[in-house]
Amino acid sequence: MHNAVEIITAKRNGVALSAEQITWMVNAYTTGEVADEQFAALAMAIYFRGLDDAELLALMTAMLNSGSTLDFSDLGKPTADKHSTGGVGDKITLPLTPLVASYGVAVPQLSGRGLGHTGGTLDKLEAIEGFQVDLTEAHIRAQLAETGGVICAPTGELAPADKKIYALRDVTATVDSLPLIASSIMSKKLAEGTGTLVLDVKTGSGAFMQDEEDARQLAATMVALGKEFGVNTTAVLTRMDSPLGYTVGNGIEVEETLEVLAGGGPNDVVELTLTLARHMLQGAGIDADPAEHLVNGKAMDTWRAIVTAQHGAPDAPLPTPSHEHTILAPASGVLSKLDARSVGEAAWHLGAGRQYQGQSVQATAGIRLHVKPGDAIVAGEPLFTLATETPERISVAEEILQNAIDTADAYSAPELIVDVIR
Amino acid sequence: MHNAVEIITAKRNGVALSAEQITWMVNAYTTGEVADEQFAALAMAIYFRGLDDAELLALMTAMLNSGSTLDFSDLGKPTADKHSTGGVGDKITLPLTPLVASYGVAVPQLSGRGLGHTGGTLDKLEAIEGFQVDLTEAHIRAQLAETGGVICAPTGELAPADKKIYALRDVTATVDSLPLIASSIMSKKLAEGTGTLVLDVKTGSGAFMQDEEDARQLAATMVALGKEFGVNTTAVLTRMDSPLGYTVGNGIEVEETLEVLAGGGPNDVVELTLTLARHMLQGAGIDADPAEHLVNGKAMDTWRAIVTAQHGAPDAPLPTPSHEHTILAPASGVLSKLDARSVGEAAWHLGAGRQYQGQSVQATAGIRLHVKPGDAIVAGEPLFTLATETPERISVAEEILQNAIDTADAYSAPELIVDVIR
Repeated sequence: MHNAVEIITAKRNGVALSAEQITWMVNAYTTGEVADEQFAALAMAIYFRGLDDAELLALMTAMLNSGSTLDFSDLGKPTADKHSTGGVGDKITLPLTPLVASYGVAVPQLSGRGLGHTGGTLDKLEAIEGFQVDLTEAHIRAQLAETGGVICAPTGELAPADKKIYALRDVTATVDSLPLIASSIMSKKLAEGTGTLVLDVKTGSGAFMQDEEDARQLAATMVALGKEFGVNTTAVLTRMDSPLGYTVGNGIEVEETLEVLAGGGPNDVVELTLTLARHMLQGAGIDADPAEHLVNGKAMDTWRAIVTAQHGAPDAPLPTPSHEHTILAPASGVLSKLDARSVGEAAWHLGAGRQYQGQSVQATAGIRLHVKPGDAIVAGEPLFTLATETPERISVAEEILQNAIDTADAYSAPELIVDVIR
Repeated sequence: MHNAVEIITAKRNGVALSAEQITWMVNAYTTGEVADEQFAALAMAIYFRGLDDAELLALMTAMLNSGSTLDFSDLGKPTADKHSTGGVGDKITLPLTPLVASYGVAVPQLSGRGLGHTGGTLDKLEAIEGFQVDLTEAHIRAQLAETGGVICAPTGELAPADKKIYALRDVTATVDSLPLIASSIMSKKLAEGTGTLVLDVKTGSGAFMQDEEDARQLAATMVALGKEFGVNTTAVLTRMDSPLGYTVGNGIEVEETLEVLAGGGPNDVVELTLTLARHMLQGAGIDADPAEHLVNGKAMDTWRAIVTAQHGAPDAPLPTPSHEHTILAPASGVLSKLDARSVGEAAWHLGAGRQYQGQSVQATAGIRLHVKPGDAIVAGEPLFTLATETPERISVAEEILQNAIDTADAYSAPELIVDVIR
């Protein structure tokens, strides 16, 4: 029999907890036997004392086992999954899922909705007419077998302990603890039952982990955790100082996805999609250059199959906004900053994101960028085009964007891919 | 307008909080606007980061102002109060209050009940036939004016914030934080409206603060806090490795008190009573040697007046136990250890203390010591006499006491008074 106060005291004093103690604490908190204030005190003690590898694995495993888990080992093909720590204009799941699936890999991409300045994959997909994100597990299985890919909301109750712990951390200033972040992400991701996991860990002004060293540590921690759990895990450390691609929003990010799947699209979106695809294919044991299926249309075919399987209309036109407003460059020079967080917040104000869970978002709201860092800008030429159904919000977004840019005489943007951690 | 998460984050990051932030947090927690889990996270952050002098004063003051406060400035005499951090056999309040009051000082001694291995002053007094500890504020005032002393339960709601915070700390492993201990004690004590406060801070095996350095720091912190609040505060650091006096329990501690008031009694009880009395008298501006009123009976007269004023019968015999059991020395030597905590726990098992708040205690249960550290013991001679109404508990108490003693060839007990901190 364990005792919450003893467990909190041990962690507070820097004594390592046993796997049994951690498992008991997580389960007792999930059932309500351990009170919110007790888990909050433990979380704060973990913030200060950290967790060693064995404690972290025990915490993650207990959270993972707190709910249902998926198992796709009977599909007869390898599975690969991607997780991004979240960025602005990060639509990579959309082209990546069909691309990897087109090589015969099952990609069960359970995704989330946006909250705050970063967008949500499901919100973007719902800009497609008819697209359904809530699927039964039977549907997911059948679709994975048939098309190879699925992008949908989590089914059942994956890692309910994480849900409860995350809500608690949010109100107790214990969100930014590396072991708590790592266990939260990995408990949900590994509950999805993938064989290969590729993590896109972002760093920079638009990322959750702004500091590169913090992001690198998080990446290394999650890779170690995935491997200890027996999943082939790789992390790609990527820069998130400015938005990915030229679009930030919902429908307009789908539009850019279609360009990538048609063999075109922005360089950064293509580069990141191919980098992550290579690691997913490699993990799945498939020796192929993913660029081929962007060129020969096989990735686009799989995209259309996925959209159709999820009741979407791949040929229906994407919705267009009722209001647009273009911001012009006040001066000439070379764009040396295009702050991802500001662009994300401006798009959020325009209606692309939500203020509270459950709120609906505008499919058409968002921001189109006309330039990227390193580009020359000319006074009076377009910088941003803002789109929204609520034009009264344009002035707020415009104000935010005024501080989003800087110019210089010369500027060369840093590499997108910072490092790969295996 | 303040925000709990911002305040917790600041403290977590080592940023000093403003008095306004601390006051808001304490008030919002007391009213329930800030949740238990948020105050628990703050308490754990304080455990790790500490509080600077200004933060500590703000916390203590906010807790003090959360409820009613007493004011005896209209009594026309100086007031002095004593607080002990709690020990075994610590009956000092009983002789000290009438002794100091006999010099014309008002001593409003609001006291507590025992919980755990340390006894409670009110439990001891209730062994006296008819003695009432629950008094109205009007009664307290009238009794202070007339007899000079009162020993009773707190009236009204003194520092309700402390009550709520203490209960929270108890279940979140945030009890042993120096600033939280200091603010808890001082918010209650200073709410009693005394002009002079003497703190008996105990250190040693039977004390809450076992480590001398910790106790010294707590004493210094409380003295600084009291002075900043404008109260003449002194702390006496005293040793609590073995029980005070020869009695541990309820009725038998009253019995020993009567010996002291009659001019006799154990050396250590007399020494500590006189030391604390000197500091109280000095703080109250009275130049006198308190030993005089023990010798000439004036302290005893005041004791009888206090007991009578609180509806007690000073001449009624104290209750006697239905069962007694004497433990004999297994070997001869010099007693080098008589562990206070073990004796306290054994007395608690015999029924002198309570297992949960509100439980009644046995007036007759307790332990009489036949020897003290430094005394020669002879095999077969009595060491302890155990008294109880529940003889089935004697064996548990006896087992605990077996580990309470040690003998050596020679031993000289350390000084009782370790230091005085002004």
